[in-house]
Amino acid sequence: MTDTTNTTSHREPVTVLGLGLMGRALAAAFLEAGHPTTVWNRTPDKATDLVAGGAVLAPSAADAIRAASLVVVCLSDTAAVRDALAPHRADLAGRTLVNLTSGTSDEARELATWSDDHLDGAIMAIPESIGRPEAFLLFSGSRAAFDRHRDSLGRLGNATFFGEDPGLASLYDVALLGVMWGTLNAFLHGAALLGAAKVDATAFAPFANQWIGSVTGFVDAYAAQIDRGDYQAEDAALETHLATMKYLVRESAAAGVDTDWPARLQALTERAIDAGHAGASYASLVEVFRGRA
Amino acid sequence: MTDTTNTTSHREPVTVLGLGLMGRALAAAFLEAGHPTTVWNRTPDKATDLVAGGAVLAPSAADAIRAASLVVVCLSDTAAVRDALAPHRADLAGRTLVNLTSGTSDEARELATWSDDHLDGAIMAIPESIGRPEAFLLFSGSRAAFDRHRDSLGRLGNATFFGEDPGLASLYDVALLGVMWGTLNAFLHGAALLGAAKVDATAFAPFANQWIGSVTGFVDAYAAQIDRGDYQAEDAALETHLATMKYLVRESAAAGVDTDWPARLQALTERAIDAGHAGASYASLVEVFRGRA
Repeated sequence: MTDTTNTTSHREPVTVLGLGLMGRALAAAFLEAGHPTTVWNRTPDKATDLVAGGAVLAPSAADAIRAASLVVVCLSDTAAVRDALAPHRADLAGRTLVNLTSGTSDEARELATWSDDHLDGAIMAIPESIGRPEAFLLFSGSRAAFDRHRDSLGRLGNATFFGEDPGLASLYDVALLGVMWGTLNAFLHGAALLGAAKVDATAFAPFANQWIGSVTGFVDAYAAQIDRGDYQAEDAALETHLATMKYLVRESAAAGVDTDWPARLQALTERAIDAGHAGASYASLVEVFRGRA
Repeated sequence: MTDTTNTTSHREPVTVLGLGLMGRALAAAFLEAGHPTTVWNRTPDKATDLVAGGAVLAPSAADAIRAASLVVVCLSDTAAVRDALAPHRADLAGRTLVNLTSGTSDEARELATWSDDHLDGAIMAIPESIGRPEAFLLFSGSRAAFDRHRDSLGRLGNATFFGEDPGLASLYDVALLGVMWGTLNAFLHGAALLGAAKVDATAFAPFANQWIGSVTGFVDAYAAQIDRGDYQAEDAALETHLATMKYLVRESAAAGVDTDWPARLQALTERAIDAGHAGASYASLVEVFRGRA
């Protein structure tokens, strides 16, 4: 392995390919932590601030790859990764390629075949929070590679390994974002409903958040039910949920706020009930999402 | 006020009208806390266990009402409440009527006119948890009545007052349940998606719950934005959310799981973007739910 940097730092040399907003944030976090950092971008002017901060701008992607055993790629999309790396697959031998480019799990699995030691990652953070513990970084692929570079990757944020299937980081990423969107939509719909009765959203929020805390208990209980394949109603049965969902639809209509969202909740529950889960727990809706109900 | 009980207890006498599963649980919690408790049900055999435990079975709804200054009603629906109480409106004078029957906010506002001192309540609990702190009881209507009977109502669970509009308890109830359904649906959809990649739901749950904890921070921030009417994107803009939502749709299709749910998330976001919120925060979706986008 070639190390083109010339430093006394004990941090391992790293390379960052792609200097968009996120790529620059990644390189800056490595630099700040004392890593000898080589960068490359198709348009090299994006590197100006990083070079001023001590980064080495490689004249080509190949030079950048050869500069470190840990090569982080953060480009606009998987097509750009293919374009940038395809001519240099031989150079990736013996190095760890960490793909932080947004893409699907299938794209991650494809890119995993390009290097001996691949990690695919997803970033649940805005560029400004990279390098801080609140930046959540998801990794999957080679566990050996993750363990070897855990300290370096941990300088980007809270780095967590999800499994050897390289697609898992992308899947967890969208699944977790989906949890956020579902929760936020429900809160925003509730805020619209209560707003029609002159309740401020900031009055609703603490109760919503307290209740969301209780919902995490249901998440744990239902996860166990899903893995057992046993949806026994230990709290309310689906038919009880359905009865109260109809109230949400009625209240929404009466308040003049959107009824599509609660009607969709109701329709999903009715599908599960039609499939025979009337007396089952809410966890049985997973069968609807699996396409089995 | 007449007190037909004959007891040395210092607890105030209470009456419970309606002895379904929930009504019996309410009466039992009052009894257990030492309240002289009068009960009534259209079919009196439901009272057998309560009478064995010390309750007084009133021969008529009128007798039951006259037995206490705190009269709790928990019947099947608002029509049943009207039927039971209409002949006895004069007897309600000077008493606090607490309606714990499931109903809409408009029904609560109508029943509030039936007594001088009305509370409407909603119960977010199963009958088994009544009397324990995890039973969450929502009240709205007369603040004076709530303050006067707070100790008694607190024996049913965690009793919280939401405001003088008698409809608020019902509205908060369905809005909070909506938050639960939205969060759970999103978790169950994610569990189906990850399940297709052989990830157990119990492996996903801790990460989902950790992330849900972070989402409560967005709830607080977005609530403040809603009340200010200012949806500045301090984290991701809606168009950024939209781009990742499309990944969730693609991953769902590739995994063979339901695509309707993520497509609905996407459609809502597109409506907000069409209304001019592309660069705004996720909080701007409240305008869609308000029917203004």
